[in-house]
Amino acid sequence: MARVAILGATGYTALELLKILARHPDSEITALTTRQDGKPPISSIHPSLTGLVSVCCENLTADQVGQRADIVFCALPHTASMEAVPQLLDAGCRVIDLSADYRLTDPGVYEHWYGHVHTDPTRLVTAVYGLPEIYGSKIPDAVLVANPGCYTSTSILALAPLLAEKLIEPDGIIIDAKSGISGAGRTPKLANLFSECNESVTAYSIGNHRHTPEIEQVLSDVAQSPISVAFNPHLMPMDRGILCSIYPRLKSDKSVSELLAVYRDFYAGQPFMRIVDHIPATKDVAHTNFCDITVRMNRNQLVIFAAIDNLIKGASGVAIQNMNLMLGLDQRTGMLMC
Amino acid sequence: MARVAILGATGYTALELLKILARHPDSEITALTTRQDGKPPISSIHPSLTGLVSVCCENLTADQVGQRADIVFCALPHTASMEAVPQLLDAGCRVIDLSADYRLTDPGVYEHWYGHVHTDPTRLVTAVYGLPEIYGSKIPDAVLVANPGCYTSTSILALAPLLAEKLIEPDGIIIDAKSGISGAGRTPKLANLFSECNESVTAYSIGNHRHTPEIEQVLSDVAQSPISVAFNPHLMPMDRGILCSIYPRLKSDKSVSELLAVYRDFYAGQPFMRIVDHIPATKDVAHTNFCDITVRMNRNQLVIFAAIDNLIKGASGVAIQNMNLMLGLDQRTGMLMC
Amino acid sequence: MARVAILGATGYTALELLKILARHPDSEITALTTRQDGKPPISSIHPSLTGLVSVCCENLTADQVGQRADIVFCALPHTASMEAVPQLLDAGCRVIDLSADYRLTDPGVYEHWYGHVHTDPTRLVTAVYGLPEIYGSKIPDAVLVANPGCYTSTSILALAPLLAEKLIEPDGIIIDAKSGISGAGRTPKLANLFSECNESVTAYSIGNHRHTPEIEQVLSDVAQSPISVAFNPHLMPMDRGILCSIYPRLKSDKSVSELLAVYRDFYAGQPFMRIVDHIPATKDVAHTNFCDITVRMNRNQLVIFAAIDNLIKGASGVAIQNMNLMLGLDQRTGMLMC
Amino acid sequence: MARVAILGATGYTALELLKILARHPDSEITALTTRQDGKPPISSIHPSLTGLVSVCCENLTADQVGQRADIVFCALPHTASMEAVPQLLDAGCRVIDLSADYRLTDPGVYEHWYGHVHTDPTRLVTAVYGLPEIYGSKIPDAVLVANPGCYTSTSILALAPLLAEKLIEPDGIIIDAKSGISGAGRTPKLANLFSECNESVTAYSIGNHRHTPEIEQVLSDVAQSPISVAFNPHLMPMDRGILCSIYPRLKSDKSVSELLAVYRDFYAGQPFMRIVDHIPATKDVAHTNFCDITVRMNRNQLVIFAAIDNLIKGASGVAIQNMNLMLGLDQRTGMLMC
Repeated sequence: MARVAILGATGYTALELLKILARHPDSEITALTTRQDGKPPISSIHPSLTGLVSVCCENLTADQVGQRADIVFCALPHTASMEAVPQLLDAGCRVIDLSADYRLTDPGVYEHWYGHVHTDPTRLVTAVYGLPEIYGSKIPDAVLVANPGCYTSTSILALAPLLAEKLIEPDGIIIDAKSGISGAGRTPKLANLFSECNESVTAYSIGNHRHTPEIEQVLSDVAQSPISVAFNPHLMPMDRGILCSIYPRLKSDKSVSELLAVYRDFYAGQPFMRIVDHIPATKDVAHTNFCDITVRMNRNQLVIFAAIDNLIKGASGVAIQNMNLMLGLDQRTGMLMC
Repeated sequence: MARVAILGATGYTALELLKILARHPDSEITALTTRQDGKPPISSIHPSLTGLVSVCCENLTADQVGQRADIVFCALPHTASMEAVPQLLDAGCRVIDLSADYRLTDPGVYEHWYGHVHTDPTRLVTAVYGLPEIYGSKIPDAVLVANPGCYTSTSILALAPLLAEKLIEPDGIIIDAKSGISGAGRTPKLANLFSECNESVTAYSIGNHRHTPEIEQVLSDVAQSPISVAFNPHLMPMDRGILCSIYPRLKSDKSVSELLAVYRDFYAGQPFMRIVDHIPATKDVAHTNFCDITVRMNRNQLVIFAAIDNLIKGASGVAIQNMNLMLGLDQRTGMLMC
Repeated sequence: MARVAILGATGYTALELLKILARHPDSEITALTTRQDGKPPISSIHPSLTGLVSVCCENLTADQVGQRADIVFCALPHTASMEAVPQLLDAGCRVIDLSADYRLTDPGVYEHWYGHVHTDPTRLVTAVYGLPEIYGSKIPDAVLVANPGCYTSTSILALAPLLAEKLIEPDGIIIDAKSGISGAGRTPKLANLFSECNESVTAYSIGNHRHTPEIEQVLSDVAQSPISVAFNPHLMPMDRGILCSIYPRLKSDKSVSELLAVYRDFYAGQPFMRIVDHIPATKDVAHTNFCDITVRMNRNQLVIFAAIDNLIKGASGVAIQNMNLMLGLDQRTGMLMC
Repeated sequence: MARVAILGATGYTALELLKILARHPDSEITALTTRQDGKPPISSIHPSLTGLVSVCCENLTADQVGQRADIVFCALPHTASMEAVPQLLDAGCRVIDLSADYRLTDPGVYEHWYGHVHTDPTRLVTAVYGLPEIYGSKIPDAVLVANPGCYTSTSILALAPLLAEKLIEPDGIIIDAKSGISGAGRTPKLANLFSECNESVTAYSIGNHRHTPEIEQVLSDVAQSPISVAFNPHLMPMDRGILCSIYPRLKSDKSVSELLAVYRDFYAGQPFMRIVDHIPATKDVAHTNFCDITVRMNRNQLVIFAAIDNLIKGASGVAIQNMNLMLGLDQRTGMLMC
């Protein structure tokens, strides 16, 4: 029975972690933290957990958490994570960090995109990027897993097979990503108000979204050569779900069925990857850890469609997948599918 | 050509005022205020106004506004209004106040429900309550109009005919009100985030919603005897619209057609009141100044349904209706219907 | 391992049944029916089931189903159910009927509200009404369970404790019910189109909704005296969830805490009932089998709030709860909470 | 005062036409048709028109309509239009056809994409394509205007300036289009049910959407050379609005400001085109006839964003714009902006 803690328990990713952990047979929640005073029961912050999780939130230091937990999910904002993680590791915990702080291997790239000097640069090279379908062999022994971004996972899973097989050009890849609003987090901001988002679709952060270098880093590693993408995120008036419509250039003619076969080979045995014939809808994967992918040819233009639930496969579900691998469990443990 | 100003131009009610004023033939926008620095064009705050309204927002005092405008829409929060309004009136403006500050005639009631001492109590008795279907004769000469609350207007319009005719009991009136989220305003708050409101319905402020005394004050005036209501507001996952389902007790048996006839008589000649045979949907009145009303009998229980657009008939549309009356214009001037 | 079939596998309730059954440890899906030709895999009808349920739909007779299954969920429209159920029972199956055909004990009441003569009237008195929190003791031995309507369950669970304790008047109970659109089913109809429902709230079937006699029958049984309700259903622009706001008259003064204590006593030991202090939101119970209830006093008017997921606790979750009881399993088996 | 008729008055585009016509000062609605029997008042079909439009729907032939109207909006399905239009023209009407029947100049292309032989092929070359910003000079004298498709208008308006100036390559243009559900019409279909569309995003008709040849025909005309596009439509969970994110290849380096200047020149004097610096949201143009456009560079990839309201600028607003031009009126007559 693994003792599990969550640092930063008030957000949407923490809520999804808690829902999965509440039914996970081999783990026990031993600490939840918040900067709020008092010891509010977690159900006062997330009423849906009433009767399911009875742990209280506490204003604990990383050290205090380290003494109570074997595995810590760090759901803090970036920069806060790289303060807490060294202490957690020193205390003997294994850490799954849901922030961006340990995803990029190059501290200069981090500084460029996040505007902060990285204060723990040596760990950037030892942290394991927590996308099990790509780095599954490294996760079981990891002490620090950098849990991927939601857009990032979708984009990487959609492109990795074709890049690994060198079927598409390494540059000029256009990603048109469509996300529900929960990806923006639970901090009150004008842009995330219901009356701003509802009945509206728009794009944002064109050319400067921070998931861009993460996508390129992992895909370059998969392709063993530099990959560049034009990543274009859009907001959809819905709670959850990401659909990426991706437009790469094929190196040579391939049929849809040949391409689907490449995907099915690449992801053989992966329990959460579904290579489908129909075009996936985000609703098909909502509240699950699945990633649904298909491809189409549109007048010589290849189009890849990949759909996930941004809070599950894009954050908390893959985090539990990582935990399961770190604990030597079946990846599916605690997931809805099993 | 009336010179018109809006104090507090960044919210949703101001946006709707601006949309109507942009097509209003007999008025000209001469000042818009905000507490932001600089002189941002209003279209940078409300992009939908690009090309329609080219006025900039300024950080003006009430006095400065008073020199530029004949009519001022005061769209400030409560307590801020009662600071600004006296200065505006002193400067010779006529004021339509969209806050709650001048709606209640009794300063003690104001203090009880709003938690602040009223600093301009003498004007409470001279301000005209700006619901033209009830107080239409007083509005043309008013210098200070207290524009009604959105739930309030719906509830009053739904109940006034039956109370005026003494067809229902004066107490035990249950109002189950359902509102879109825009009624909560444009200030970032956790409760108004898309991911909190979407796919969810709940109730709030049961027993202590501030529109309660306003409803009771006006209905008591209409009925010429004390009226009490149990007002129960609910939030719906939509931008705009209020549906009130109201459950009064009939004093004696009446048929649906007799009751509808009472409404049609009471509102004869009112251009924005539609007494309909079907049950209204909020979508029927969205983006209009209409109030649609019908009644049903459900096993001896009378049910009144009334629907408005909370931002138009519930705020900015009725404010323009008031302005039109104050200027001696047809009530419908600038409205979508004409 | 119980062999389980679903008659009518293409609707939303069947989808939710399938999701729960896919993770249920003690049952096995052995037949799914549809009137479509061919043998379409269920994942072609419900793409979200890809990789989870590999059974095909077949155009089977009730007899054929009867030979393959121990427990049959009958998710057919009313009147179709009362044709199929006798055959299923004759074939030795135990049946959980999700239609309305076996909910009302009086065939005359059925005929009045449904406009059809009941063709299997003798079984109306032997069928068990499948609301475990009320009739839990009768379900384990039942061969035919009439699964309740969604509005019905919410209303009954909200009112039963106070009626059982005779704390409220038996008549004049006003139920203002708010439901997501999935309750209207998956048959294409103008009224259920996205562009009709979205951004709109309305009421329907006032005075003639078919869940009315069902609510009254069960509550009269609980109260051991005739109960009448004015049931007022409303449609909300969301997928799933019901919130009932209920306005009964208290016989004598009670405080909120006294009333909550009554509920907590009445539902002691019930794993899916959560008596909460806050006002529940439908989002709190979405995708779960929970029913969240609280009460408030609003100027001497008692208000009860009860929230469920209409597809889970209002249909498929309670059906599985019934199956679990019939199989001697823990009620929570297969449910998300355990 | 022009006498105006609408053939096919029950759909969403007819509703929007009626709303604009209700406030249009120089036209009068003289006939509305439906295939329903009786003479239902239009407000029984569109309750929002109660009190605004009092005309009844009639089951009229094209000839009968022709005798009552000077201008006919034909809002029939394709193939039904090409039966009615010749009769309307013979009766002396001028016709604005909102179907696809007269949009494509080549009857072979029509047959290929629509699967029907065109029965009125000679008029394909005389019909004027009703996009005033492109073919404005031809519309005043037209007797038959083919009103454009909604995706088509957005795509053409976004690409025409750059193609006219030969700044982008003529092939390999990727259009990722995002539309609200009202574009799918008011006919009940499973795919358009609220519970299917809500909380979901997906793509459809990849490679075979019928707006593709329309986009290519007009853009080829603008560019005076063959243009090909990969058009990828997606459905968004909202009522109305289209955002096209378009990815062409620049022939040579241009800055964002140089490109915006090209757009501003091209659309100088066009009252409904807004070239903006911010990324437009569909909400900015909802319920208006505006088209908002901007451009961005994303790592050497040009991205064009264009937003319209699919029912107004994408259908009924542009139809009124066409009518205004045909009647010699200001294009803005009856529109919300003026």
